[in-house]
Amino acid sequence: MSIATIYEPIQEGLELVEEKLMDFSHVDYPWIAKPLGYVLESHGKRVRPGLTLLAGRFYQYDLKKLVPMAAAIELFHNATLVHDDAVDHALLRRGKSAVNSLWGEGVAVLLGDYLFSVSADLVASIGNLRVVSMFARTLTEISGGQLRETFSSYNWRLKREEYYEQIYSKTASLFAAATGTGAVLSEAPEWAVETLLSYGKNLGMAFQVVDDILDFTGDEEEMGKPVGSDLLQGTLTLPAIILRERNPDDSSITELFEKRGGREDVDRIIEMIRNSSILEQCHDIAADFSAQARKDVEGLPDEPCRRSLTELADYVVERRS
Amino acid sequence: MSIATIYEPIQEGLELVEEKLMDFSHVDYPWIAKPLGYVLESHGKRVRPGLTLLAGRFYQYDLKKLVPMAAAIELFHNATLVHDDAVDHALLRRGKSAVNSLWGEGVAVLLGDYLFSVSADLVASIGNLRVVSMFARTLTEISGGQLRETFSSYNWRLKREEYYEQIYSKTASLFAAATGTGAVLSEAPEWAVETLLSYGKNLGMAFQVVDDILDFTGDEEEMGKPVGSDLLQGTLTLPAIILRERNPDDSSITELFEKRGGREDVDRIIEMIRNSSILEQCHDIAADFSAQARKDVEGLPDEPCRRSLTELADYVVERRS
Repeated sequence: MSIATIYEPIQEGLELVEEKLMDFSHVDYPWIAKPLGYVLESHGKRVRPGLTLLAGRFYQYDLKKLVPMAAAIELFHNATLVHDDAVDHALLRRGKSAVNSLWGEGVAVLLGDYLFSVSADLVASIGNLRVVSMFARTLTEISGGQLRETFSSYNWRLKREEYYEQIYSKTASLFAAATGTGAVLSEAPEWAVETLLSYGKNLGMAFQVVDDILDFTGDEEEMGKPVGSDLLQGTLTLPAIILRERNPDDSSITELFEKRGGREDVDRIIEMIRNSSILEQCHDIAADFSAQARKDVEGLPDEPCRRSLTELADYVVERRS
Repeated sequence: MSIATIYEPIQEGLELVEEKLMDFSHVDYPWIAKPLGYVLESHGKRVRPGLTLLAGRFYQYDLKKLVPMAAAIELFHNATLVHDDAVDHALLRRGKSAVNSLWGEGVAVLLGDYLFSVSADLVASIGNLRVVSMFARTLTEISGGQLRETFSSYNWRLKREEYYEQIYSKTASLFAAATGTGAVLSEAPEWAVETLLSYGKNLGMAFQVVDDILDFTGDEEEMGKPVGSDLLQGTLTLPAIILRERNPDDSSITELFEKRGGREDVDRIIEMIRNSSILEQCHDIAADFSAQARKDVEGLPDEPCRRSLTELADYVVERRS
């Protein structure tokens, strides 16, 4: 199953989102237009705007509201990526040079701020207070989470529960905002809003666990960034947490973090993880979240978009990049 | 006339704003609480929240709405300061170490994002769509302006009109948002909203022109940052623009910017400006904006808050730091 098939019920809407995003890079000032266009064109799979449109497809599919909402979610997502890369001094993003490595960190900070602002502006323009609140609360969840994650980097004591909280803040909260705002704007009944919020959250959890697996298994070509980046940056994710759970006396990670070890130490830990059943266990955990997401949408009207949401839950755990 | 006298009609409200700001530094996570408290406690004169309260004092003075609005404006203002300092690698802010110089630039970026987010969250919580839009549009104005300013740094060709546009984006737009949202939330009639928006804009223009004069005249002790910082960072402000207007053949600024000159070159330009009548001319320009602001509020109801706004317009051009 391909992402294009999944997006079939919302193809027209997604094209309008794409147009809306491109509008933003056609600003009057060439110095903003260039880095802005660069960020918005080097897009990923547009999962988040896709979610807003799919979640908004069950009841009043009002593209005049859903398209700006979906575009705002994507703009905001890109703002966080640009800032994350600036903070991490990342060289690559989606296989291309990161904004900070092309234009410097100052520009990355200000460009991220601009993307934040236009996303907020776009949400405000829809004129629905509930989605404004949902969106604003999500900003706080994400930025608070990022701040916590930074202050807990190189913390080898991180527990699985704390990891789940972190990936909720980092990823699942925005997935939930994507589906939740789509539901609200389509005037879905309250139970359906709750259902779609829960779907978004579970899908986001599955998505991030898979992302964290791919940091151990993916190849640099497909991922657009080196393998083991998380460990190298002092971020403990699920595979490494389970390695520590299984081998409480092994000191590889403790030493890596305390001595700020390099590539070789990381490669050794990657090998230990690959030679165990840890990645299968992680995959099972992602599959559990995905199954929960599929279950969430069972009670929704039997429309093509419901099948898309179900298939997306499978796609997210099967993807290779 | 002291700022305390000016704030008399809104003293209770300002105390509530202070409490609200302190609430934000009492978050559960000590790692956020510390830098957050540091930023919010090292406050300036709270001009922007003061403006929201004063502008909201003419009609329905509803502190349940005005206090979160004023706090949001101040939180947002602090977010921009934290990011600006990170972008400029500034060492000092208000005479204390800048966040980036204490906790690093990554933390400054994420802390600024967090402050942005909680300010948006707070505005959303008030439940008034018009102020949400005003606020969101201001974010875009400011962040777009910052981006333009960065891309035009070391541009010695900058014209006076472009300078006015820049200081509108940078400063006056937020002053206008402060007074405009205060007016809207107090259910002021439309003509009074427009009047207070115009007052805020003119006051902000005066404020920034004075700030730019102080960068040439202020002493480091009072200003909390070295004299001539703007020129050193490649930012052309009004005094330097007028120097170039008066002496089109003088190449001091062109050379400073093109050769990325240092302290000595800046000191020479400061001397040239101080030994001319340029700073008086700049002061007259600030006084014109301030007079315009005073004129704006003449038609408003004759309340103590109107006198405060008039006095604030004087205060802003007479201040020494």
